Amino acid sequence: MKTWVTIPNQSDFTIDNIPFGIYSTHSTKPTVCIAIGDQILDLVVTRKLGIFKGLKIKKRVLKNNFLNDFIALGKEKTNAIREIIQKELCDEDSKMRNVKKLFSLQSEVQMHLPIAIGDYTDFYSSIEHATNVGMMFRDPANALLPNWKHLPVGYHGRASSIIVSGENIHRPMGQVMPPDVDFPVFKASSRVDFELEMGFIIGKNTNLGEKINTIDAENYIFGQVLFNDWSARDIQKWEYVPLGPFLAKSFASSMSPWVVTMEALVPFKVKGPEQEPKVLPYLEYEGLKNYDIELAVAIQPKDQTETIVSNSNFKYMYWNMSQQLAHHTSNGCNVKIGDLMASGTISGKEPNSYGSMLELSWGGKNPILLENGEKRTFIEDFDTVIMRGYCEKGAIRVGFGEVRSQLLPPL
Amino acid sequence: MKTWVTIPNQSDFTIDNIPFGIYSTHSTKPTVCIAIGDQILDLVVTRKLGIFKGLKIKKRVLKNNFLNDFIALGKEKTNAIREIIQKELCDEDSKMRNVKKLFSLQSEVQMHLPIAIGDYTDFYSSIEHATNVGMMFRDPANALLPNWKHLPVGYHGRASSIIVSGENIHRPMGQVMPPDVDFPVFKASSRVDFELEMGFIIGKNTNLGEKINTIDAENYIFGQVLFNDWSARDIQKWEYVPLGPFLAKSFASSMSPWVVTMEALVPFKVKGPEQEPKVLPYLEYEGLKNYDIELAVAIQPKDQTETIVSNSNFKYMYWNMSQQLAHHTSNGCNVKIGDLMASGTISGKEPNSYGSMLELSWGGKNPILLENGEKRTFIEDFDTVIMRGYCEKGAIRVGFGEVRSQLLPPL
Repeated sequence: MKTWVTIPNQSDFTIDNIPFGIYSTHSTKPTVCIAIGDQILDLVVTRKLGIFKGLKIKKRVLKNNFLNDFIALGKEKTNAIREIIQKELCDEDSKMRNVKKLFSLQSEVQMHLPIAIGDYTDFYSSIEHATNVGMMFRDPANALLPNWKHLPVGYHGRASSIIVSGENIHRPMGQVMPPDVDFPVFKASSRVDFELEMGFIIGKNTNLGEKINTIDAENYIFGQVLFNDWSARDIQKWEYVPLGPFLAKSFASSMSPWVVTMEALVPFKVKGPEQEPKVLPYLEYEGLKNYDIELAVAIQPKDQTETIVSNSNFKYMYWNMSQQLAHHTSNGCNVKIGDLMASGTISGKEPNSYGSMLELSWGGKNPILLENGEKRTFIEDFDTVIMRGYCEKGAIRVGFGEVRSQLLPPL
Repeated sequence: MKTWVTIPNQSDFTIDNIPFGIYSTHSTKPTVCIAIGDQILDLVVTRKLGIFKGLKIKKRVLKNNFLNDFIALGKEKTNAIREIIQKELCDEDSKMRNVKKLFSLQSEVQMHLPIAIGDYTDFYSSIEHATNVGMMFRDPANALLPNWKHLPVGYHGRASSIIVSGENIHRPMGQVMPPDVDFPVFKASSRVDFELEMGFIIGKNTNLGEKINTIDAENYIFGQVLFNDWSARDIQKWEYVPLGPFLAKSFASSMSPWVVTMEALVPFKVKGPEQEPKVLPYLEYEGLKNYDIELAVAIQPKDQTETIVSNSNFKYMYWNMSQQLAHHTSNGCNVKIGDLMASGTISGKEPNSYGSMLELSWGGKNPILLENGEKRTFIEDFDTVIMRGYCEKGAIRVGFGEVRSQLLPPL
């Protein structure tokens, strides 16, 4: 596809991508838009051109604080909209050309949290991450727990505190148990960490009692985002037995503003890791269900250049999204449009591919050297954490942009 | 207060109560209502009488699928509405008398899930329950984990699968590890259990980063409901280490249709249990923060009479709601109107006051005898589980009605 829009070199937002988001300006209320190059395209203005005509898209679906109503149109319509836009952006005679207020520079608009998130589930599906954490927190000889290879372990997370890239967070306070004492203290966390994750957005409701199988699962997924599941390791260590992480995670999670559709990611499907022992039939799958998405994490100290501290890839996931969704609904639990399901920390095999400071600094023992000469074991006040992701195959590049948040001192 | 409405003896819905809910009939769309005796009072029709005039309540707040917009009016207005209704129902000359479509019999209307639940948090705040579970699942000598007396342990639950009383559920399928084998199986759960809980509904938003202290906490609570947090013990046992319960709980939870306001519960405030060791300052509280609410659970086999299997009381809770909310927001996690926070299973000291079959049958070892001669260790297909709760002090009685769901065979 060749578009008449200028796409900068190495742009994540090529004509093959067309991800959806919500933007506003001082004069435009929140509106559904797509990203193309370094611009956004307003879908309310686009609709006025009449190019979606047969689809009967109501204006209120597009003049909206969130993508949920848009997603609820169903894949048939949302894919048609994406394809119509691609066609117009490649048509030299498109009536899109020279329409006022149709395009804006991304640098001049405000992007919003794109989804009104219902329930948020966090999985734990990287075998490298689970092994690393098991070695540090539990028993190095039996790092993986007995259930880990039989089911995609997951837990419910907090949806209310999910923020969009660009919003900053404060170092959380919390109860921790210092070593060598016998009484806990309430203090600012001294082990604030990122977790490099991908999240997928549910695109279709199910009823209570309904199961999704691995064959159909991707039809229930609208698209994916980058996701930083902020963690406070000292709070986590003291609170998480027996019911799992709670306040160690619920102070904030950051997501990227652009939802990249499953359709845009089709060219990047790859084989997943061998699963041994064999999984139970309801978790079996056929075909390519992993995705080759290059991921990177950077730490940027205040007013300094950034340092890439991790290069990972989404293809490493032991459990894929289809298996996660089949498992999640295997008990009849219903899913709703706008639910978010995150992968869990995405670590690779090599130490420089680990997806958290906990692993990169091996529990704080091996500090990471930054470009400015400083060292980091965990995240310091005023550090900005930036995650980026993109897929590339031949001439096709589809990217996620970035998710960035700065850690401010405790309130 | 003496009302002109006929209130049956032992009714939960006295003039002192006035709980809120959402009802509909074949000719009336979902509408905010209150319960009085065995009737409901329609608040849209009430509003037309002009008695809320100074409060400027918009019709769309009351003609609504959920109470969220009503709760968002704030306690000043919702308490005023409750008090105006109480006054009118006690005024022999009230213009409410003989207005058509104002009252309906509860038996002739459909009650709905009253709240669009955002996030659902489940605590674990009964010391008797935590001790019992610890004895069975872990170490009898160290039943309580080291953190338990220092913080109100809690975890995030699944909001999408919360249903209203009267909706039935299906026995969940799930992955379990049978004893004496080394490979899990996917089968219908054979240990479906209830958990007797109370839930409270957040009545006021906070911002990310904001903390609620124990002094103000009850101002952030709109009211309370009965809550059955259905559990599948065999699924739970296999999945819950290390990230906590997931599919063992997310197949369904049932709540009562009436939200009893905190204001109606004021007469029933009581002292909580002594907390030893002393809690950290952010969890300290003054005054009466526990509530004396008599609770009962009945099992009703298909077409048979019910058997009360547990008599418990909400006053037993080690951690009160104010402490739970102070802890939940201590890391800056924001809360939203419509969030639900449940107590965790409410067990008392005596075996007949335990709040789950897991405890009542002590892990299935001591079957419970039902009135019809049958025995139960866990819940069987076609059993209906009914929970009821009420407060009584002198002549004042305030009740919650009931939450009931039947367990149907797996789909």
